[in-house]
Amino acid sequence: MKTRLFTPGPTPVPEETLLELAKPVGYHRSAEAKAILKEVSEDLQYVFQTANPVVTLTSSGTGGMEAAVTSCLAVGEKAILLSAGRWGERWKGVLKAHQANTVLVEVPYGKAVTPDMLAKALADHPDAKAVFATLSETSTGVGHDIEAFGKLVANTPALLVVDGISGLGAMECRCDAWGVDVMVSGSQKALMLPPGLAFVSVSEKARKKIETTPVRGFYFDLRRALAKWAESDTPFTPANTLIKAQRASLKRIRTEGIENLWARHAKVAAACRAGVRAMGLEVFAERPNNGLTVITVPAGLDGSAILKAVEKKHGFKLADGQDNMKGKIWRLSHMGYVDAFDVLAALAALELTLAEVGFGVKVGSGVAAFQQSYAGK
Amino acid sequence: MKTRLFTPGPTPVPEETLLELAKPVGYHRSAEAKAILKEVSEDLQYVFQTANPVVTLTSSGTGGMEAAVTSCLAVGEKAILLSAGRWGERWKGVLKAHQANTVLVEVPYGKAVTPDMLAKALADHPDAKAVFATLSETSTGVGHDIEAFGKLVANTPALLVVDGISGLGAMECRCDAWGVDVMVSGSQKALMLPPGLAFVSVSEKARKKIETTPVRGFYFDLRRALAKWAESDTPFTPANTLIKAQRASLKRIRTEGIENLWARHAKVAAACRAGVRAMGLEVFAERPNNGLTVITVPAGLDGSAILKAVEKKHGFKLADGQDNMKGKIWRLSHMGYVDAFDVLAALAALELTLAEVGFGVKVGSGVAAFQQSYAGK
Repeated sequence: MKTRLFTPGPTPVPEETLLELAKPVGYHRSAEAKAILKEVSEDLQYVFQTANPVVTLTSSGTGGMEAAVTSCLAVGEKAILLSAGRWGERWKGVLKAHQANTVLVEVPYGKAVTPDMLAKALADHPDAKAVFATLSETSTGVGHDIEAFGKLVANTPALLVVDGISGLGAMECRCDAWGVDVMVSGSQKALMLPPGLAFVSVSEKARKKIETTPVRGFYFDLRRALAKWAESDTPFTPANTLIKAQRASLKRIRTEGIENLWARHAKVAAACRAGVRAMGLEVFAERPNNGLTVITVPAGLDGSAILKAVEKKHGFKLADGQDNMKGKIWRLSHMGYVDAFDVLAALAALELTLAEVGFGVKVGSGVAAFQQSYAGK
Repeated sequence: MKTRLFTPGPTPVPEETLLELAKPVGYHRSAEAKAILKEVSEDLQYVFQTANPVVTLTSSGTGGMEAAVTSCLAVGEKAILLSAGRWGERWKGVLKAHQANTVLVEVPYGKAVTPDMLAKALADHPDAKAVFATLSETSTGVGHDIEAFGKLVANTPALLVVDGISGLGAMECRCDAWGVDVMVSGSQKALMLPPGLAFVSVSEKARKKIETTPVRGFYFDLRRALAKWAESDTPFTPANTLIKAQRASLKRIRTEGIENLWARHAKVAAACRAGVRAMGLEVFAERPNNGLTVITVPAGLDGSAILKAVEKKHGFKLADGQDNMKGKIWRLSHMGYVDAFDVLAALAALELTLAEVGFGVKVGSGVAAFQQSYAGK
C-alpha cells in the first residue's frame, strides 16, 4: 500500500532534498560549508521576511525556544505569555525552567488570544521584558494575529518573541514589517526538511537586550550563535548535511515566491475547510491557520479508532489530538511539500472511512466541495 | 578528482546509511519510530558496553556535554576537570557557563592527564561531586586512561563524566566495567553518521545524583530524556531520519563485533604511526589514541599550506590544528568507516606532497612501513 504523511510535522520532504541527504558528508569548516550556510541564511531571511540575522541551531524547535528564553530574559524578569494550547504551554515550561516571572494570558483550546487581551496585559505589566506568542498553535489549528500583536508590543520596551515553528512559511508572516523581535522556526514543517534544525531571527532591539542579559547556558547562548553567524559559521559542529539539504528546499520556496506560497496555502486551507464542512464536520479552531486543518470529532465517534482505520486501510497518516485532546480532534496538515491534490486525496480517505463506520456522510460531498472552493466556484 | 574525508569528525558515512537518509520521512510518534529508537538504544548500549540507559539527544556533542553538566551539578558544586586540550577546554566553558566550582587539572597540549594527577585531586577535594574527563582529546590525538580514572573515582562519592564524542567506538572503552557514570558521545565520529545526534549514558549513581539536583534547563534536562527513554520515546521531536540511519551504521558495528572493531582501529593506528615515523615525522601525542593520528609539523614547513596542497592536488581532506595549534600539527582521522587501505592512501598523498615541497622524505618509505606494520612484520 502507498503511504502518505499528513502530520503537522514532520511533513513530506521533496525528492531533490532527500537525495541531497544521500550524498557523501563534507567537512563543516570548509569554505564550501560556509558558502552553503551563507546561502541558507539569506534564503531564511527571505522566508522570515527580515533583514536581521537568522541563526541555525542543531536541535528540535524547542531548543530554539530555549535559546530565545535564556538569551533574552534574566532570572526573575517578567514575561507575558499568550497561550492557546500545547505550544503555548511549551513556552510556559521553558519559562518556568528558567525562572521567568510569567504573566499568563490563556484561552481555552480552540480559541485564539486576541489583541485586546495583549493590550490589557501590556497596560497592567509595563515592566514586562518580553511577550511570548505562537504563530500557529498546531495543537488546535489556531493562527494568531501576530501583526496586531506586533503593533502593540512595538510601543513598549518589551520584545515580541514568536514560536513560528510550524506556521512560518505556511501563513503570511512578515517579521520586520510586523515588529517580530525574535522568531523561532524549525526545519520539519513548512520548510520541507526532516527534523533536526531550528532557526532563530534576532532584531536589533532583541540584540541589545541579549547583550545586557547575564549569560546562562552555553549551547543555546544566542551571543555565540550571532558572533559565528557574522562569519557564516556556527559555534558547534552543525548537522551540516541537513543544512545542505535545507538549501534545496529553500530554493523551492524562492522559486515559487513567498507571497505565492502563502496564497497557495491559503487557497488549499480554504478548500480543505469547505470539504470538511460539506462532510458534516466542524473546524475546531475559531481562527484557523493555513498550515493545517483541525477537525472536531463528532460526538459518538471514536476519533482515535477512525484515524487508525484511515491509516490501516488507506495509508494516510493524520495526527490525533495530543494529551487530553486525544480522540477529540483530527489534525490534517497541508503545509510544505503538499499540494491541493494531496489534500483532496486525504479528505477522500477520511470521507470513505467515515462512510464505512456509518457516519452520515454523503460520499463525494467533501471532495466535491473541496474542488468547488479550489476552483473558486 | 576523487575526494576523500579524513577529518576527525565528520567522518565518511557508509553508503547503506546514506541511502537510509534519502527515504521518505515518517512520523516520529509511531509504533515503528519507537521500535527503531529501541533498537538504536540497545545497539548503543552494546557500543557503550553498558546496561544503563543511553539517551539520544538531537544536538551537537556539546549539547550532550551541557546535558551532563546541568543535570548532574547544582550551581556552585565542585567539579574536577582533567583537561589536555581543546575538548577539555570545552568542558571548562560549559562548567563555567553553569557556575560550577571547577578544580582544573591541566597538562600541556600533546600530554595526557595521568591517574596520579587525578588521585591527588580527589584526595585534595573530597567534596568534588564529579570528575570531567575526555576519552579522545581529538585536538592533540591523546587518549586517556579512563579505566584507571574509573577505579579511582569509584571509591569516592563523585561521578565520572566522560566526553567520548570522538573516542567511543574507535578505542577500547567499557563504560560499566570501568566505572564511567556518564558517557557522552556523538554521531559524526566512529558511529558513522552525519552530525546531529548526541548520546548520553547514565549510571544508577548518576541517576541518583540527577534526581537530587535542582532542575535547570529544559531541552538538556536528562530527567526528561530518561523518562521518555523508558518508553522508547523522546521528549522533543527528534531528528528521526538520523536515528533511523544510525540504526544502519550501528548494525555494521554489531556485525563486526566491538572487540574486533577496537582491534582493527588499534592495528590501523599502529600502522599509521609506523608510516609517519618512517617518513621522518613525529607523532604529537605522548599517549596516542586509536581514532586519529596527530603529526607534528616539522620545523620550517608551513603546515597549513601543505594540507591545502594535499587537498588541492590529491583530494584528501585532513584537518589542521585548531586555534593556536593551526599550522603546527596535522590531524589524520582513521575512525569509523575508514579501513587500512584508505589510511594507506592518505599517507601516500601526504608523502607525495612532502616530497614535492622538498622535505627530505624517501618516497615509498611511509607506505612500506605502514604495510609492514599492518602485516605484522
